[in-house]
Amino acid sequence: MANLVPMSETIPATVPTTMKAITQTDPDNPRSLELADVATPTLQPGEVLVKVAAAGVNRADLVQAQGNYPPPKGESEIIGLECAGTIADAGDTGREVGEEVGCLLAGGGYAEYVAVPVGQLVPIPKGFSLTDTASIVEAATTVWSNVGMLAGLTEGMRVLIHGGGGGIGSFAIQMCKAMGAEVATTAGSAEKLAHARELGADITINYKEESFVDKLKGSCDIILDIIGGPYLEDNVRCLGLDGTLVVIAVQGGPKGTLPVARMMPRRQSVHATTLRARPVEQKAEICASTVEHVWTLIEQGKIRTTIDKTLPLADAARAHELLDSGTVTGKLVLVV
Amino acid sequence: MANLVPMSETIPATVPTTMKAITQTDPDNPRSLELADVATPTLQPGEVLVKVAAAGVNRADLVQAQGNYPPPKGESEIIGLECAGTIADAGDTGREVGEEVGCLLAGGGYAEYVAVPVGQLVPIPKGFSLTDTASIVEAATTVWSNVGMLAGLTEGMRVLIHGGGGGIGSFAIQMCKAMGAEVATTAGSAEKLAHARELGADITINYKEESFVDKLKGSCDIILDIIGGPYLEDNVRCLGLDGTLVVIAVQGGPKGTLPVARMMPRRQSVHATTLRARPVEQKAEICASTVEHVWTLIEQGKIRTTIDKTLPLADAARAHELLDSGTVTGKLVLVV
Repeated sequence: MANLVPMSETIPATVPTTMKAITQTDPDNPRSLELADVATPTLQPGEVLVKVAAAGVNRADLVQAQGNYPPPKGESEIIGLECAGTIADAGDTGREVGEEVGCLLAGGGYAEYVAVPVGQLVPIPKGFSLTDTASIVEAATTVWSNVGMLAGLTEGMRVLIHGGGGGIGSFAIQMCKAMGAEVATTAGSAEKLAHARELGADITINYKEESFVDKLKGSCDIILDIIGGPYLEDNVRCLGLDGTLVVIAVQGGPKGTLPVARMMPRRQSVHATTLRARPVEQKAEICASTVEHVWTLIEQGKIRTTIDKTLPLADAARAHELLDSGTVTGKLVLVV
Repeated sequence: MANLVPMSETIPATVPTTMKAITQTDPDNPRSLELADVATPTLQPGEVLVKVAAAGVNRADLVQAQGNYPPPKGESEIIGLECAGTIADAGDTGREVGEEVGCLLAGGGYAEYVAVPVGQLVPIPKGFSLTDTASIVEAATTVWSNVGMLAGLTEGMRVLIHGGGGGIGSFAIQMCKAMGAEVATTAGSAEKLAHARELGADITINYKEESFVDKLKGSCDIILDIIGGPYLEDNVRCLGLDGTLVVIAVQGGPKGTLPVARMMPRRQSVHATTLRARPVEQKAEICASTVEHVWTLIEQGKIRTTIDKTLPLADAARAHELLDSGTVTGKLVLVV
């Protein structure tokens, strides 16, 4: 039946044609984030409409508000890379209206409704709330796709995770530990390092007080990095034989020095990735693999949420301000 | 029977206890290479003794003579990374004395005899002489292990090969072309570029006259690089989506700038490797895979030798001088 009428008309009567969403009123002011009425998204083939209950806040959202991380072509201009909620319209997918799901998004999470390719839906882990789920979808898929699928994490490896106090770092420490790795991590405060140790980190380094190279030189199998350019050379010096450095953010700068001669006899590699720019087929593959390999660990209690604070969706600007301040340990979640 | 007596006594009567080999008389003079009498190598378990007929000359040999590329621990101090010849003593391997073989070496090729782990023996391709074989073992294993096994070359990819006039480059152009790739290459003279075109290169660039980035920006799936540091950033700019840069030599310098932010949305990677430092198990795997995937192409005439000149073993210094001059196109081979 649904295929006999245009997509936009398949929205059930319970879905309004307009919705509240966070919009940026001044492109030059990254804090000018306000709730406004916008059109409810229409569905493309293979998408479901999700009524958002909670949306995770990511550092990339701050960069987008600064104008430096525009959404991929054709994606929502609304900020927000992950959420959880209830399917309000299953479109042509055959999914059930009313099903609770987590969502990996290319954008659009800071809103009452979001259109999601069906391959980017993940189940709610047993024991998790929608808010819990909204706080881990982006981290779980990012960490597993890079540390597991790309770098080939196996038991007994030593993994260095930069930014152990952040959302990605908090998830990565727990996941690597649960998979049998020895985990080293860096952070910039005693509080964040204590948090990292609670999550299972074996070696914690305050980068403001000591050199991580001195502690880890030549010993790491995998490094998950969010600093980029300024850490490149030191990261490589921490890698051991066949070591893999994966850079997923460049918070410190876009370029750096690579000591390629040093890498040769050690057969090392540097990979740089973003999840958001991947085609939907790859995102679907990543979501499926993440659920297969990581969801059990969550349901066994080996990986828990690390929500620092929840705020109402209307307070997106304040959430960004908090995250920017460097005082947040773990995740911020906006609830609708 | 062989196992009942010490290894050193298993050398058949026809193998003398001393042999001629190139030795460096002055560690500070890379051209002080002279034939001298040295002890014939004794065999370790799993090794055969090969009577060398011809030994390929590699740029790495020049670096070793300069004192900058010492042999891995436990390996021969004699220069020479590849040869071909006849098994003179099969040790405990069960191979046949008298069998003709090509050899991938960690060192020792510039000599009358060399001890070789049995996994590093390759058959003589049909139609190839021992001299032909000695000219391609190192190139074939290096190119296949990096472009095939590591970077995953498939039909239709665009591959950039730096140094199309050299031994590695000449082999890589032909192999990639034979496997259905589009091949771009750089070299420093019209003569070398003509040679590269004869071997099948589709795009040839004189790096002294034009920018390879201008011609190839964002278009390459795989880059095989021998320049290292100074080319890093330009190489990355030439990579396309999911592109792989493999650095196997640093003729231009040991470090360079890596634009890691640029790489992220394109999911690019940089690998650095050397074949010589790999453990024997990996070398055996690489030799077997190279024979499996590349030998047929040689026997079908799709990859030919590109020997510029053969010289007597005693003329090793002159061979190094020639290779250093930059006027050699293809390979130099020393014949015993």
